[in-house]
Amino acid sequence: MSSKSGMEQVLVENEVQQVRLLDSVNDDHGGVIVELSESMDSKVFASMLKASLALWRSQGKRGVWIKVPIELVNLVEAAVKEGFWFHHAEPKYLMLAFWIPEGAHTLPANASHRVGVGAFVMNKKREVLVVQEKSGLFRGTGVWKFPTGVVDEEEDICAAAMREVKEETAIDTEFVEVLAFRQSHKSFFDKSDLFFVCMLRPLTFDIEKQESEIEDAQWMPWDEYVAQPFVQKHELLKHLVGIWKAKEDEAYFGFSPVPITSRFPDQKSYLYVNDRDLKGSKVRMSQTA
Amino acid sequence: MSSKSGMEQVLVENEVQQVRLLDSVNDDHGGVIVELSESMDSKVFASMLKASLALWRSQGKRGVWIKVPIELVNLVEAAVKEGFWFHHAEPKYLMLAFWIPEGAHTLPANASHRVGVGAFVMNKKREVLVVQEKSGLFRGTGVWKFPTGVVDEEEDICAAAMREVKEETAIDTEFVEVLAFRQSHKSFFDKSDLFFVCMLRPLTFDIEKQESEIEDAQWMPWDEYVAQPFVQKHELLKHLVGIWKAKEDEAYFGFSPVPITSRFPDQKSYLYVNDRDLKGSKVRMSQTA
Repeated sequence: MSSKSGMEQVLVENEVQQVRLLDSVNDDHGGVIVELSESMDSKVFASMLKASLALWRSQGKRGVWIKVPIELVNLVEAAVKEGFWFHHAEPKYLMLAFWIPEGAHTLPANASHRVGVGAFVMNKKREVLVVQEKSGLFRGTGVWKFPTGVVDEEEDICAAAMREVKEETAIDTEFVEVLAFRQSHKSFFDKSDLFFVCMLRPLTFDIEKQESEIEDAQWMPWDEYVAQPFVQKHELLKHLVGIWKAKEDEAYFGFSPVPITSRFPDQKSYLYVNDRDLKGSKVRMSQTA
Repeated sequence: MSSKSGMEQVLVENEVQQVRLLDSVNDDHGGVIVELSESMDSKVFASMLKASLALWRSQGKRGVWIKVPIELVNLVEAAVKEGFWFHHAEPKYLMLAFWIPEGAHTLPANASHRVGVGAFVMNKKREVLVVQEKSGLFRGTGVWKFPTGVVDEEEDICAAAMREVKEETAIDTEFVEVLAFRQSHKSFFDKSDLFFVCMLRPLTFDIEKQESEIEDAQWMPWDEYVAQPFVQKHELLKHLVGIWKAKEDEAYFGFSPVPITSRFPDQKSYLYVNDRDLKGSKVRMSQTA
């Protein structure tokens, strides 16, 4: 994968020097990616970086990415002194970025949204699957709420909804639809939040609550759930109760996942569409034809 | 805002020392937030951090956040040595996190998704608003595509779709619906992507293309748009063409934004729902009653 490494002659500030360069791979946008893995002195790194930048500049490279594992945090300052900025970070690494050409960079924006799911699961006795949480906003309030959770990086929304229900209550489900979603802002620091309300069909019925996070779980009669003062007062839940009522009458349709292939053949995506309307429309079209 | 600062007596390792503490504010979850702003020597910072951590521990604090502006990058290494990890980063700052109690932390997950919008805008002559881009995947391919863009932090999806159309073509629009959305993974590094396909109604019709990013823009006859080999081959677009055809027959309904109030009274969110079905259901209910 490495496009260059070892000792090379590079022209830096009109002098020919012997300098070790950073290992890098080319990306698909005319830039390079460096994944640091070797501990080194920050001064040695600084000179390698300077020399590498001079070479990349002479080669007409555009964006430069440096992924710094947290163990090599001592190298961050030197890169920032060369003009690198923070692009994004995860617990174990920091991604630094630099733009060689003149003018504004065209590097992709950082992830801006956290994604959550809520799972509405009702059985044939008109009971809804609800939990009481051990921590968070509703701890100790006695409020029964539908299972919710965070969608992980690289996790499908439909898979996340089923996983959360399974983890919190041990109930197996089949994904039906996204009934609605909410976008809100400043959910933590400056990041925004997308919350997908999903409907799932239960396949098993014996609840086993998760010890670590769940205080209690039950199948609760729908009218009792709705009668909770918390549900009556909460604007989002009031809307959702309306949707669920319409859903019971088979008068409401959300978005169902349709698998599609992405640019990369090994990668499946889901397109969420109003499948009932699409199918109805196709039926009508074929009847007309 | 600051809960403590200046010189205080704290007990560290059984010795009473005079140490300056870091300025911090309490968060809503039993933790503290430090926003560094003053340049200092990293050794001075390290001793202030140690003393502050000892105090916070004795106070039963939980999560500790340190926001490090990029100018103070010299302080990052000292914090990591104390056990802090990278939580998230933006160009101008790095957010470090630490968890004082025993056991797994309950700090919020980092943002995992980038959010994009595509805008489907059709006029009454059955022409669709399309552009050719100066950069990116489709540069120089002659492909006419509908306007797309990235949703910024703190920006509503509906607002982002209208903004992108305005920026790229100068056309004013009214937001109608989210017709569908796609979730895909590994869109850049390990981050996932949510792409919302929106339908907008044009309010003006004279195109003025954006010089910086747009090669050309036009109202294109719908059949010509669909006939493009690129549209015929692209799985997502084939689905969308089906949706737009159904939409023309008024046989397809997506999700429309309904403003709702968040927990913070000054903060509006949007709930996206199938409003047609909801309204239809209410009409039916009132007719039954």
